[in-house]
Amino acid sequence: MSAVQKLLKKEIGAVTISATRVRVPPQPGLINLGAGDPDFNQPKYIADTVYKAILEGYTHYSFGGEPELMEALANYYAKWGYKADPSTQVVITSGGSQGIFHALAALVNPGEEVILFDPTYGGYSGPSGYLGAKIVRSPLKKDSKGYFRPDIEALKTKITDKTKALVICNPDNPTGSVFTKAELTAIADLAKDKNFAVIADEIYTEYIWGGRPFYPIIAAPDMADRTIVVGSFSKMFAWTGCRAGFLISGPNLAPYLGRVPLGINSMPVPFQKAATVALIKGSDFTKYMASQYLERIEYCADRLNEMKNVSCVMPESTFYVFPDISKTGVKSAEFSAKLGEQEKIRGAAGASYGPTGEGHIRLALVEPLNVLVEAMDRFERFVNKL
Amino acid sequence: MSAVQKLLKKEIGAVTISATRVRVPPQPGLINLGAGDPDFNQPKYIADTVYKAILEGYTHYSFGGEPELMEALANYYAKWGYKADPSTQVVITSGGSQGIFHALAALVNPGEEVILFDPTYGGYSGPSGYLGAKIVRSPLKKDSKGYFRPDIEALKTKITDKTKALVICNPDNPTGSVFTKAELTAIADLAKDKNFAVIADEIYTEYIWGGRPFYPIIAAPDMADRTIVVGSFSKMFAWTGCRAGFLISGPNLAPYLGRVPLGINSMPVPFQKAATVALIKGSDFTKYMASQYLERIEYCADRLNEMKNVSCVMPESTFYVFPDISKTGVKSAEFSAKLGEQEKIRGAAGASYGPTGEGHIRLALVEPLNVLVEAMDRFERFVNKL
Repeated sequence: MSAVQKLLKKEIGAVTISATRVRVPPQPGLINLGAGDPDFNQPKYIADTVYKAILEGYTHYSFGGEPELMEALANYYAKWGYKADPSTQVVITSGGSQGIFHALAALVNPGEEVILFDPTYGGYSGPSGYLGAKIVRSPLKKDSKGYFRPDIEALKTKITDKTKALVICNPDNPTGSVFTKAELTAIADLAKDKNFAVIADEIYTEYIWGGRPFYPIIAAPDMADRTIVVGSFSKMFAWTGCRAGFLISGPNLAPYLGRVPLGINSMPVPFQKAATVALIKGSDFTKYMASQYLERIEYCADRLNEMKNVSCVMPESTFYVFPDISKTGVKSAEFSAKLGEQEKIRGAAGASYGPTGEGHIRLALVEPLNVLVEAMDRFERFVNKL
Repeated sequence: MSAVQKLLKKEIGAVTISATRVRVPPQPGLINLGAGDPDFNQPKYIADTVYKAILEGYTHYSFGGEPELMEALANYYAKWGYKADPSTQVVITSGGSQGIFHALAALVNPGEEVILFDPTYGGYSGPSGYLGAKIVRSPLKKDSKGYFRPDIEALKTKITDKTKALVICNPDNPTGSVFTKAELTAIADLAKDKNFAVIADEIYTEYIWGGRPFYPIIAAPDMADRTIVVGSFSKMFAWTGCRAGFLISGPNLAPYLGRVPLGINSMPVPFQKAATVALIKGSDFTKYMASQYLERIEYCADRLNEMKNVSCVMPESTFYVFPDISKTGVKSAEFSAKLGEQEKIRGAAGASYGPTGEGHIRLALVEPLNVLVEAMDRFERFVNKL
């Protein structure tokens, strides 16, 4: 242990919880389907609103956040069937990823256990590990059609008296599944019976396909005060670089979220003004993006299913496809690396989302259809050579 | 303990570390000298740069932050005599207050001790307490002229084998003192001898009066890898509502800061573009603000010194005055409350910065001179009645 490591919090000195993001240099000819960064730009009214706000001097402290934004968020979320009180149940965050830290940081004591489904988005393990939690992975289970689904019996076996929280991603990244009301009710019943909290990462709710209903677990009976919903504008309005998110929680739990001392409200006021406008009049933009994503997904899922040793369910949500490549006999990390080297396509190895993700690769469909046609041609050539 | 409190991290369930910011309703006739929120608005080129950036689509992920901003920050900071490597030693934060959390979160294990000078800015105790640290207060000591100065002998008595970090605010809020090179060298020697880190909150460096030199403790011999500098645009460029800050640390320590899993880079990219421009061409604006602050400070310090039972040193820095009101015989909390009730002036009780601040009141001179004339008239009328 170096002199510097001795100065650090022990979890920071250990390498395992590293959350460092590495800047990837641009590579000519690369088709980047790695990160979930929408290729759409914000409508001009977002820029106009931000500009006007700065010129008008809305650049000063807004302790607790702009009331109009909190009201717009509560009204927006009400469309899923749960109405939060804007003045007490809504917290504005600097993006969804900070919201995840914020939610876990309100709950977890060192030595407690956080259950993550598997496979799942990678952003939960860093904060859980930093907070000294033991991470317990509960595998999702494929149904007969190939969809990953919550496995309630498996989940029951993972719960101990140290279980503090379960993190669910619904709609789910990377699998694209949307949990059913029955599945969520079973999870909620366990949470109440075994006394743990549920952090519900719901950042893909605008991108659900085929009319499947979205059911927010916070709306289940007696769940509000043990649920923290994480929301984000990043995918909803293509604001990944503008860092805007929110938490919604129950009337008795939410006030404690304000005690996590992450600093003064962390979303610039001009963007709070713009986020308010986006919530009120942004649905045309999200619908446009959704129509584009759906076209891309249907095209790519069809193409992937035609390829040798590849199968791909039509995702129920998100703009990811998560094809099963297990029949190629190549592990997902190697598959992903070689796909990058040989065909200049960046995707994410299924195993990077947890061991149950092995045999899959995640492709973020954040390029226009003509680029995805080229990507599928390359992908097909790649698997034909394996 | 309620059912909800049982779900929480124990420090969050306890009331003592509350960092909740309460929205204060506007009050007719109030002169608000409470929060340190500059009354200046950003120059138009800030709005123009943000606007252009959004329109041009600089709204997507920037993992690790914009290289041009990190370079501008390293170049800016070099004027104080320490040149950081922009690609490894600079971290962009969502404002100075989040930078404070970030710095402490990299260092502090539960049960360790964090030393705060006293009086000091209130934003260090929330994060320290949240992280499970014991807060130890080391009093500043008034010199013969009435300036609060670091008391090295007192500090020595506060250091134990559990001391992990000392937080210094230099230039100092609320006292307005600027620590001398000799004082900082003595602190650095203790840090090296007793093996603790120094978090140096340096957000007021642009507002130093009378040509007193600013010496950054990170530049002291062998201090870089045990120092984390907290910087902020909030006071420097009047960006309080735009949440922009940074950390600078030594070459071996800084990479670990990236491991604190606070989420993806938390300053919107359009504001990163604007911050870069501000660092390169913003000095006219800061000089203008400084000239205004100096005029206000000189006026108010003179007026306060003329008042019965009040004395006020000319601060060496910041836009605060911190008059000694102890001879009025009224405790600072009561003084502040009555000043608000009777004369509609909001100030901050000295005791809110720690017990050594008792007998003082902090006034943030964030109103134009004509308003401050009125404020001083009211203040004088108030003390005359005591």
